[in-house]
Amino acid sequence: MFSEKIMDNLNHSSWIRAMFEQGAKLADKYGKENVYDYSLGNPYAEPPAEVQDAMKKYIGEENKGIHRYMNNAGYPEVRQQMADSLNKTGKVELNHENVVMTVGAAGGLNVTMKALLNPGEEVVIFAPYFVEYNFYVDNHGGKTVVIPANTKTFGPNLDQFEASINAKTKAVIVNIPNNPTGVIYSDKDLKEMANIIEKKEKEFDSTIFVISDQPYAAIIYDNVEMPNLMNYFDNTLIINSFSKSLGLAGERIGYIAVSPKIKDCSKLMTALSFCNRTLGFVNAPGFFQKVVGEAVEAKVNVEAYKERRDYLYENLTKLGFEVVKPEGAFYLFPKALEEDDVAFIKKAVEHNILLVPGSGFGCPGHFRISYCVEMDMIERSMKAFEELAKEYK
Amino acid sequence: MFSEKIMDNLNHSSWIRAMFEQGAKLADKYGKENVYDYSLGNPYAEPPAEVQDAMKKYIGEENKGIHRYMNNAGYPEVRQQMADSLNKTGKVELNHENVVMTVGAAGGLNVTMKALLNPGEEVVIFAPYFVEYNFYVDNHGGKTVVIPANTKTFGPNLDQFEASINAKTKAVIVNIPNNPTGVIYSDKDLKEMANIIEKKEKEFDSTIFVISDQPYAAIIYDNVEMPNLMNYFDNTLIINSFSKSLGLAGERIGYIAVSPKIKDCSKLMTALSFCNRTLGFVNAPGFFQKVVGEAVEAKVNVEAYKERRDYLYENLTKLGFEVVKPEGAFYLFPKALEEDDVAFIKKAVEHNILLVPGSGFGCPGHFRISYCVEMDMIERSMKAFEELAKEYK
Repeated sequence: MFSEKIMDNLNHSSWIRAMFEQGAKLADKYGKENVYDYSLGNPYAEPPAEVQDAMKKYIGEENKGIHRYMNNAGYPEVRQQMADSLNKTGKVELNHENVVMTVGAAGGLNVTMKALLNPGEEVVIFAPYFVEYNFYVDNHGGKTVVIPANTKTFGPNLDQFEASINAKTKAVIVNIPNNPTGVIYSDKDLKEMANIIEKKEKEFDSTIFVISDQPYAAIIYDNVEMPNLMNYFDNTLIINSFSKSLGLAGERIGYIAVSPKIKDCSKLMTALSFCNRTLGFVNAPGFFQKVVGEAVEAKVNVEAYKERRDYLYENLTKLGFEVVKPEGAFYLFPKALEEDDVAFIKKAVEHNILLVPGSGFGCPGHFRISYCVEMDMIERSMKAFEELAKEYK
Repeated sequence: MFSEKIMDNLNHSSWIRAMFEQGAKLADKYGKENVYDYSLGNPYAEPPAEVQDAMKKYIGEENKGIHRYMNNAGYPEVRQQMADSLNKTGKVELNHENVVMTVGAAGGLNVTMKALLNPGEEVVIFAPYFVEYNFYVDNHGGKTVVIPANTKTFGPNLDQFEASINAKTKAVIVNIPNNPTGVIYSDKDLKEMANIIEKKEKEFDSTIFVISDQPYAAIIYDNVEMPNLMNYFDNTLIINSFSKSLGLAGERIGYIAVSPKIKDCSKLMTALSFCNRTLGFVNAPGFFQKVVGEAVEAKVNVEAYKERRDYLYENLTKLGFEVVKPEGAFYLFPKALEEDDVAFIKKAVEHNILLVPGSGFGCPGHFRISYCVEMDMIERSMKAFEELAKEYK
């Protein structure tokens, strides 16, 4: 009666959702304070003062006309503010004509896939990966090709990357800081990746786009620098969102920035605007375009996330967990204490700890901890982690 | 290098866009005040006081957490506010579980198509129709079937509707008040349409969904009543938006309401939430969910639109234009003064009048006037219309 494909998808619904429902049940049974929910990537941080100020500024009669439709790509001055921000780290100069404001990064990724993909073309992703990529690519007729994880460092597995590229390869998604590992690829890895792409583009006489999905770009620790991928790859699209950096996940505001080095860049921009319109986004929410334009350099309290990362990293490694220390985002991706990560997750639930199995990210044997939660809950959960670990001693 | 289908679409870009660009050129040449732009459906009306008040209410520290992700279907209390509003005219009782908040009606339509359509299934639309329907259906593998216009009344052409239904018919889109005619279908027509659908569902042992796309439902004149389509058809989805009723077009806020009479209604709701997520909308913008929840019964100044309709209707009929008097929305759809509507439109441009040809709506020989513009411009344009009409005397 409905779409068979969607019905089939619903039968394989996400682990994150399953954990969410499990959590609600446990909270009912044991009380909310006795359940340790690390399953959702929902930023707990409130928007910084700059956002609050900008919201106040754009409310009121003097802002006549700001709630109307604007160009499908967004307000030109806001697009310029995004370009200016990227120009601080980029060697390629952008202006407003290189930016499309979007309904978050998820909207931006769908618009990009629609504009780029022909039926059956391939998009390379590195495990562990954000599971929604599979839908975003499939929605528009493409196929994801997964590069198995390098579980030692969670850097990109470049040999397998090179081997995976063929004439149908249209794009590769680079997600750093990574969800779920928090890892940022090194300068060396990115340069080598660029060499591989250049070589393969020559071999197949093709264009391979690098899509930098970077919603966590502002959540970075220890003075590590977020690389600007336009400095490494000519055919780069940067997709960003203010969900995490400004705590505006529910407002659905982000952008696509297109490198002017892309051949026929202005044609691609027209295509992105067209897809923004015809996929039903039409334009990014107008009021919050104005707000993020003013607050583009602001950030939520990153120190608070760092405190959580440090606390969890220290305490979990003490308990015997193996984990690559994340340089950004708000996730840890430790090795599970048994080979079967789903069995491990189920064991954790018995201790009222909600986690997401690595299998959900294409990387079995691991699990994700999302630490965008109250410090208080983290502290209370340590006893439960201790008991969980004891079961494997 | 990019999607060939999208590139092809761009080569057939919309008339509305073409007019928009034409307008900018003319404005440069003759001055903005000497160009009469009737091409865009961009509501000029400002949001009513209720919206301004609700915006103020939801700004500030005391609203902790409102910018985070919520359930993909939206805030439960806002969904209930939508249900309560529909329950005022509906004989079928809705609650929050029947409502998904969406990124405008355009987002709602894409989500609905994704959740309903299997490859090659058909969606019936009545000419003249909103041209984006073709994209929304094609995006998700479906095919639109166009019922030719009944140009006498612009009511639904029911004989042809009946003849068009086959085993692949999945849905019909009803758009009243209609863009571009402003017509609302009569009680009699809707009842007859229901009989036809019931008969055909039996014949093909199928389910045919009625999708009521009603962004203009609140812009209605002369005490005409907007029918609640759930009272006519069991398998109804109402898709609404606050773009026009509250002047919030740029904020992308609307909803899908699902009739509880649909078999497996809760499964459909899960599918709609899932598609909202995986198509990249994720959820309707959170802040404006809260705002429209408070302002759901408010309206922009409809009298101002009525004044424009009456003025244009009176003056254009005096000049010899034939036009069905619209009962709602903010469009007039007169007969062109020559058979070739595109030639007529071009003639109008010579008088600095920007219109959209009926061909763009699947109804040649007519043209659309969008009167969501300043009254002042309408008055100034009359001399130009007079001269245009003279050319055909």
